[in-house]
Amino acid sequence: MPETVPTEDEVLAWFESLSNWGRWGPADQLGTLNLVTDEKRRAAAGLVRRGRAVSCAWDIDTSEHPDDAGTAPRRLMVTTGQGLADPARVLAPGQESHPRHAGAAEQISLYPHGFRLTHLDALAHQFWDGRMYNGRPAELVTAAQGATELDISALRHGIVTRGVLVDAAAHRGVDWLAPREGVRPEELDAFLEAHDLTVEPGDAILLRTGYGAKVAAQGQDRIRETGRAGWHAACLPWLREHDVALIGTDTSTDASPSGYPAVRNPVHLVGIVAMGLSVLDNCNLEALAATCAELGTWEFQFVLAPLAFAGATGSPANPLAIL
Amino acid sequence: MPETVPTEDEVLAWFESLSNWGRWGPADQLGTLNLVTDEKRRAAAGLVRRGRAVSCAWDIDTSEHPDDAGTAPRRLMVTTGQGLADPARVLAPGQESHPRHAGAAEQISLYPHGFRLTHLDALAHQFWDGRMYNGRPAELVTAAQGATELDISALRHGIVTRGVLVDAAAHRGVDWLAPREGVRPEELDAFLEAHDLTVEPGDAILLRTGYGAKVAAQGQDRIRETGRAGWHAACLPWLREHDVALIGTDTSTDASPSGYPAVRNPVHLVGIVAMGLSVLDNCNLEALAATCAELGTWEFQFVLAPLAFAGATGSPANPLAIL
Amino acid sequence: MPETVPTEDEVLAWFESLSNWGRWGPADQLGTLNLVTDEKRRAAAGLVRRGRAVSCAWDIDTSEHPDDAGTAPRRLMVTTGQGLADPARVLAPGQESHPRHAGAAEQISLYPHGFRLTHLDALAHQFWDGRMYNGRPAELVTAAQGATELDISALRHGIVTRGVLVDAAAHRGVDWLAPREGVRPEELDAFLEAHDLTVEPGDAILLRTGYGAKVAAQGQDRIRETGRAGWHAACLPWLREHDVALIGTDTSTDASPSGYPAVRNPVHLVGIVAMGLSVLDNCNLEALAATCAELGTWEFQFVLAPLAFAGATGSPANPLAIL
Amino acid sequence: MPETVPTEDEVLAWFESLSNWGRWGPADQLGTLNLVTDEKRRAAAGLVRRGRAVSCAWDIDTSEHPDDAGTAPRRLMVTTGQGLADPARVLAPGQESHPRHAGAAEQISLYPHGFRLTHLDALAHQFWDGRMYNGRPAELVTAAQGATELDISALRHGIVTRGVLVDAAAHRGVDWLAPREGVRPEELDAFLEAHDLTVEPGDAILLRTGYGAKVAAQGQDRIRETGRAGWHAACLPWLREHDVALIGTDTSTDASPSGYPAVRNPVHLVGIVAMGLSVLDNCNLEALAATCAELGTWEFQFVLAPLAFAGATGSPANPLAIL
Repeated sequence: MPETVPTEDEVLAWFESLSNWGRWGPADQLGTLNLVTDEKRRAAAGLVRRGRAVSCAWDIDTSEHPDDAGTAPRRLMVTTGQGLADPARVLAPGQESHPRHAGAAEQISLYPHGFRLTHLDALAHQFWDGRMYNGRPAELVTAAQGATELDISALRHGIVTRGVLVDAAAHRGVDWLAPREGVRPEELDAFLEAHDLTVEPGDAILLRTGYGAKVAAQGQDRIRETGRAGWHAACLPWLREHDVALIGTDTSTDASPSGYPAVRNPVHLVGIVAMGLSVLDNCNLEALAATCAELGTWEFQFVLAPLAFAGATGSPANPLAIL
Repeated sequence: MPETVPTEDEVLAWFESLSNWGRWGPADQLGTLNLVTDEKRRAAAGLVRRGRAVSCAWDIDTSEHPDDAGTAPRRLMVTTGQGLADPARVLAPGQESHPRHAGAAEQISLYPHGFRLTHLDALAHQFWDGRMYNGRPAELVTAAQGATELDISALRHGIVTRGVLVDAAAHRGVDWLAPREGVRPEELDAFLEAHDLTVEPGDAILLRTGYGAKVAAQGQDRIRETGRAGWHAACLPWLREHDVALIGTDTSTDASPSGYPAVRNPVHLVGIVAMGLSVLDNCNLEALAATCAELGTWEFQFVLAPLAFAGATGSPANPLAIL
Repeated sequence: MPETVPTEDEVLAWFESLSNWGRWGPADQLGTLNLVTDEKRRAAAGLVRRGRAVSCAWDIDTSEHPDDAGTAPRRLMVTTGQGLADPARVLAPGQESHPRHAGAAEQISLYPHGFRLTHLDALAHQFWDGRMYNGRPAELVTAAQGATELDISALRHGIVTRGVLVDAAAHRGVDWLAPREGVRPEELDAFLEAHDLTVEPGDAILLRTGYGAKVAAQGQDRIRETGRAGWHAACLPWLREHDVALIGTDTSTDASPSGYPAVRNPVHLVGIVAMGLSVLDNCNLEALAATCAELGTWEFQFVLAPLAFAGATGSPANPLAIL
Repeated sequence: MPETVPTEDEVLAWFESLSNWGRWGPADQLGTLNLVTDEKRRAAAGLVRRGRAVSCAWDIDTSEHPDDAGTAPRRLMVTTGQGLADPARVLAPGQESHPRHAGAAEQISLYPHGFRLTHLDALAHQFWDGRMYNGRPAELVTAAQGATELDISALRHGIVTRGVLVDAAAHRGVDWLAPREGVRPEELDAFLEAHDLTVEPGDAILLRTGYGAKVAAQGQDRIRETGRAGWHAACLPWLREHDVALIGTDTSTDASPSGYPAVRNPVHLVGIVAMGLSVLDNCNLEALAATCAELGTWEFQFVLAPLAFAGATGSPANPLAIL
């Protein structure tokens, strides 16, 4: 297969030719997660050979990030352990003396999208021509009620399947892919062949561009200016043919800018809207890549259980690879 | 073993006699999760026989609950799918015409404690006499920085272990335990013996009081008035002897009121502060109980990956049983 | 004038007959606040005879209210004064020793609408047939950008005018008006005549139903069930004829239920959408009523400076009467 | 009076020598606002000669500011005007058909401190040696309950007094004072003398450094790096002698860095803690300065009504000058 770059017209045509609309019925809420069967989950458990569990998520903190105005995580304490021994300590309402017990708690506020938080998109997250996956009207996602269909709570029982790490950075022999670089299907196939792996229906494919190593070395990119490495649009037919259930990436999935002015984020748009593909953004794949290299295996049990917040179009996520 | 109820003095003595302080070193952040080894995780995967994945969490919504003033979940939309076709649609800043693509996103706000949300407590969540687990000062949990030790981010690689469901309601032959009723060690043993199960070090024990069935039939209790079923304090030595790593419950863990005025929540306090036990509150165990009964097995692979929010003393959780 | 109750058709006709659309130009952002001139403000200052300043707002707190799910105020501390003398006190990042100075701060979260907070509605707060005041499309109020016209920031220089208190409860000789009771124009006129007052263009009229006294005696009503006293729709022509600039009420303005199924909140709808009237909900008029009675005057300088939050459709408010 | 700069020891001594502790009784909650009497308010109304009302606040928006990580204002819409005419419009729960009326609302989240929002500090905002104003323990400001004394709700009836604008930038003949420059008492006196003004007990003094003009020309400073112009510590005795009730500034009050390592913000610390002075940060004084110059008067009625949020240590503010 020559490394040809699809034209914008070709990408636009994929909204129809790669579509899964109707494939699992008109009321389907799961998209490609229909491909994860009991048998698939059973087999995935068999990939746990050493008993190692590795997070694919970034820790969450409240620090300032570029391109994150208005969406930075907040953690505001409601009670703390401070001053418990101070003679002037204030009694809680209704208390007459200080108990020996005390506790701490907080409110947390999160934006499960953007360039920072490891998060899973619900199928209601993207629209094309006013439609969501399966042809449902975008209008069903409202300010008052959130996503009244295709929201994240449809995934309450989690995603448990076979995971495969495609370490594109290691395969290219670089620390990280430069911003804007897109990984194409030829490269996926080469990696899989080199590691004697086959992609099967219902798999979760995690793509490592090395962005975690870049952050460690140089700090966060100002994404809107620099762009990001990620999946090239050319992978879309490959994902459809292989019936991949979920893609996760250590960037925000699409190589960006994508080069397609009318379809700025083709992997998100064709993937989510047409194919019903589960998309997992902003993974931290550094620990997993190191573990895979150490153990000499790039497949594992993949477990991701989003928060089933009714009406939400995404969830913060801590996906685990168990191997 | 006669069904004796420990005195408050006996419970107070357990802060020392059941203590795990120092057991895993002075800098330990994991408590009983140290008992979950690679071998344990490997064996747990072997419990996946049918490939069923079942959530142990409640869906999250924004409805009004009793006893939840100030801590109800909030989901506030940042973009929606409304009005995309309206001629008066407002352009985003910098746009000259409307794109064919659009999307939806939201901020979510959660309180990972209390009586509603399924959540995992971090070891920094409880204090006794101004100390946390391992003797660390409560003062280390501050308003500005949150928990600077023993916070939930210590559990970033998740909890993957053998899970056992103790269905106390089914075992008693009732729909649900009445509020205030505590399950005692004799009952745990009887359930395990009846189902030919042995508890092993590093296990996660999920206790079903049937509260989910009660909610379905009667709505949410006003907990502060009615109290709740749960673990009786008498189970604490049992949990320590069996080296249980985590307990999850379909209520807020402690049978309450506990009957111990000075140690209001003994399972939380002795469990978390003295033993370093992981405590998972407010599970929804209805689907799991039905699945266990259907499959005739009460053990499974248990997977819980909290959000690793630095400084937080808990995390919303969607624990999965895979069986 | 006989006490006739307008029919729903008559109320519906007022959207046209009482309209101020176009009166102050097609780009107007102020509505009836155009009636507050420099001369009006100059004269209002002359009403300050004793130098008393009285708040017309409720204190804000975080307690649980009925009918307030999801919108209760939150105050979450970011730093406190606790534990400053504790030897285990945590240093702030970058600090080497504890300074003698410290401070406290918080995040506050408010919903400047509903039945609780004293708040001023922006003209973008209400729509009728998809239109706002002056015929502007409702579509201009978006999830991402808020109200892109007629938002509260248009009122950044505040409302400074003559205020008149109409104490309907005192005039009727009752402690408070029963829920659902509407004050009609005849009653306004009778009150004004009894107190030798004339309403002038640009005035702010504050209507006291005595709800504050009811709260003090009986606690908060469950408004959605009980209804509320307030302005009867019949006052709308009166407000338009007198060119009143703002109405404030110790309830949420409209007597409710209004009796008009198709125009549930006629004072809000005709007032804001057709007339461009400023509407101030949920005042606390108890202190003001007592002061007016004490001083024997029911007119005063009225000052209200909303928070000029760009895009917001309302603001929490602490209106002052200075007399 | 020579322009001598006080030593740090001199500044430290002011915590005692300038103290107002006990002056208005041990339970006082108002500090220098006790100096604003009915007579003072009555006289202030007499300064309204033209009927002009001018805001001294910045509009609030959600844009990214430097030095504002984690504290930027948020406005999240709960309902909007989008999609009202779309055939797929979602009905609200319980509705059977779409009403002709609709409305918009939002949650707002604010941090009434820092370098951005125009805000009034409560007396509970600052501590020195573990004490607040009047010797009250800092420990009274807790995570759970906020400031249990000296909170902003003590100021519920607002601040209505004589205001005086000291336009230091105009007086120096510069567009704006450079960061770090402090205005000293000699300069205050020179300005007042030049404009034939006398400061009286209970006055509110607004100091303009021209920062608003700097923002207009150059954008926001990165305050933590550049520092800010403002009041020099040397003004503290002057403020105490003249019994000023409130100071407002178009920066965050203290010239910073102050040059006093142990008392980083001397005007905040001595002012609030020792004197009980009301401090109003981050005013926008551009419109007021222009109006004062136009009318040839630098005194006016000053009105500020903070949100009386129980337990809060500050309030967003929209102070008005009426002249």
